[in-house]
Amino acid sequence: MTRNPKAPSQLVQEVALLLERVRTERPLVHNITNWVVTSIVANVTLAIGASPVMAHAHEEVADMARLARALALNIGTLTPYTVESMILAGKAANAAGIPVILDPVGYGATPLRVGATRRILDTVKVDILRGNLAEMAGIAGMTSDIKGVDSVGAEAPGQSVALSVAKDLKLVAVVTGPTDYISDGDRLLCVENGHPLLTRVTGTGCAATAIIGAFAAVERDYVIAAASALACYGIAAEIAADHSDGPGTFAAAFMDGLHNLRPEDVAERARLSVTRV
Amino acid sequence: MTRNPKAPSQLVQEVALLLERVRTERPLVHNITNWVVTSIVANVTLAIGASPVMAHAHEEVADMARLARALALNIGTLTPYTVESMILAGKAANAAGIPVILDPVGYGATPLRVGATRRILDTVKVDILRGNLAEMAGIAGMTSDIKGVDSVGAEAPGQSVALSVAKDLKLVAVVTGPTDYISDGDRLLCVENGHPLLTRVTGTGCAATAIIGAFAAVERDYVIAAASALACYGIAAEIAADHSDGPGTFAAAFMDGLHNLRPEDVAERARLSVTRV
Amino acid sequence: MTRNPKAPSQLVQEVALLLERVRTERPLVHNITNWVVTSIVANVTLAIGASPVMAHAHEEVADMARLARALALNIGTLTPYTVESMILAGKAANAAGIPVILDPVGYGATPLRVGATRRILDTVKVDILRGNLAEMAGIAGMTSDIKGVDSVGAEAPGQSVALSVAKDLKLVAVVTGPTDYISDGDRLLCVENGHPLLTRVTGTGCAATAIIGAFAAVERDYVIAAASALACYGIAAEIAADHSDGPGTFAAAFMDGLHNLRPEDVAERARLSVTRV
Repeated sequence: MTRNPKAPSQLVQEVALLLERVRTERPLVHNITNWVVTSIVANVTLAIGASPVMAHAHEEVADMARLARALALNIGTLTPYTVESMILAGKAANAAGIPVILDPVGYGATPLRVGATRRILDTVKVDILRGNLAEMAGIAGMTSDIKGVDSVGAEAPGQSVALSVAKDLKLVAVVTGPTDYISDGDRLLCVENGHPLLTRVTGTGCAATAIIGAFAAVERDYVIAAASALACYGIAAEIAADHSDGPGTFAAAFMDGLHNLRPEDVAERARLSVTRV
Repeated sequence: MTRNPKAPSQLVQEVALLLERVRTERPLVHNITNWVVTSIVANVTLAIGASPVMAHAHEEVADMARLARALALNIGTLTPYTVESMILAGKAANAAGIPVILDPVGYGATPLRVGATRRILDTVKVDILRGNLAEMAGIAGMTSDIKGVDSVGAEAPGQSVALSVAKDLKLVAVVTGPTDYISDGDRLLCVENGHPLLTRVTGTGCAATAIIGAFAAVERDYVIAAASALACYGIAAEIAADHSDGPGTFAAAFMDGLHNLRPEDVAERARLSVTRV
Repeated sequence: MTRNPKAPSQLVQEVALLLERVRTERPLVHNITNWVVTSIVANVTLAIGASPVMAHAHEEVADMARLARALALNIGTLTPYTVESMILAGKAANAAGIPVILDPVGYGATPLRVGATRRILDTVKVDILRGNLAEMAGIAGMTSDIKGVDSVGAEAPGQSVALSVAKDLKLVAVVTGPTDYISDGDRLLCVENGHPLLTRVTGTGCAATAIIGAFAAVERDYVIAAASALACYGIAAEIAADHSDGPGTFAAAFMDGLHNLRPEDVAERARLSVTRV
């Protein structure tokens, strides 16, 4: 396994191109997310230049998913009703050929979350699965120590978890943390952009899932789409941290940072690396 | 049809007076809104000087509506349960004689939204209907091209849609956009205040609906109430845009702008015009 | 009844120690709260240094409560479903021996809220009850004049209401307002920190409840825990007010203020006083 610590310049160019494509095409991203993060998820989606919609009624989720170009699911405050909403929307998304992204918030914390995640994975073709290390390690069947919805460590490091989940479930696995790992079971990309203040604002993980959806809407290579989304996200956070005094002003500056992100920022700051297996 | 491009000075004085009345009377506005925008709706209502309350349980919506001085309904993340909540509250509001404002978010996007809007309009006397051009054109029965919950154009321009909806449904129709059009089917008012950053913050349309509710609580001429609310809203956005670097800092500055809005700001900046039919 | 207008220096030291303990232990606080304030409740909990989780599905609330170190309940947008969630979680919290904090939002506004509050108090051992003066006076059986969810006055002043509720219900009663009163029926503490802008941001009362939960997780003397939480909360608000131009920038600065709060700030600014009965 060789690791190239330098961001391949071609990859960085692709990130900037995809950002531009998101802004030009303004893809509609249908979110079924938890009730804590609805606002930040929608605002991050708008700030990066895409268009959010939320709908969860069984009577319309499939209709709405068919209007969208990506579907982002999040089990943060799941109920049996909303899990069913996710499955109905997921099946419609599959039929329409749009990407489905799942965020298994708090996987392992309760049997309900384990069962819901498995049921969604069994009945919907999930294209991208994004979680923190503890959640993704749990899904990989590795020992993990879950505390609520925060990642507090797991035996395996992020890259082996990403590879393992991607291979087992035949999807693109995204393990986010100080370094993000993205894998389709073959390729493994690392993104080292970001800032610790992201962990002090609720919903930044969930919003990362939505923004991955926006990039997946415009780029069918989901490894590249997810890495590009996370690089842009992390760079905006770095810029925001320079203009903030704590998590409150950071949250506002982060929206500004996403909105104002320029190709030059991406070129200067992207810290992407590719590891082949 | 003659159009007076100058804001009649009497109308501008009335806007400032109504703003003062909202702040003095602090009317309670009962919102049944979507789960994405609850926080911004409540904060905008507080910032302008009114008092928000949210309640949707069937067991109490009628009781809460009777305590309020306006009822603002929003179908953004509707379910059959919340539509029923809106109808129960709407009937109580009608019986109590307080204004009912409806925001048909995403009308036309799905059959559920079309059916819910029609059912509410059929069973509740809605006093003011506020939507973007695509939603309102859809309601007017005109061809429209809906994409999720964002307005992306319609054949007819805002003023004819506002007139048509107002006449057909016998209510005050408000079509918001770069220019807002308010009509009771006879009078037509235009408000040209606002800022494009409003479109980059989620819930600003829904919050405009709530603020129209606050003004309608203190002024029974709903054309004047809605126009006044939108002028204040737009002026606060203009002031906020001068103090922000993007949608995040704008959202914070916008709350400040509403809170600090002075009669002088209204007098200097209001861009209202009256078109008689 | 004697009143010591000076903050006992020992008490102020304890506040600073508890703040440090919250940050070191990062207790998980399980919130079942209303859908208007989820985001600010989570962000305030993160900003003070604790860890929030939200879950309300009947299938997992008990599991989640058992993982947490405090349970904060809030009836702001209650439905029969969420009241049942609160009872299931509350019983699990009682069995696990973790503190339960209840926020009876809008008590007295509707029969549903009165009944739900009573049912929770009858079936769950609530350790701390926090409300505004009108809500708490209503619970004390005193005449009160409720307007939606805002406190608009009551016959009895805060300290007698706090004492009365604490004695009647055998719990720690917290009446928040310009001065906060905390009592276990024997001791009575007053906290005079805070800023009027707190009343212009939605959810600041609900978030105070969550932060009391964070302090109660690390200090079993709930009178001390609640007073410490409210002193820190109020001091952060005072600091934030110095860096803001209105409710929007205040809300952001308040998160920064909680995150950056230092023991020196507590020592310099805490306005605590103890009144023995």
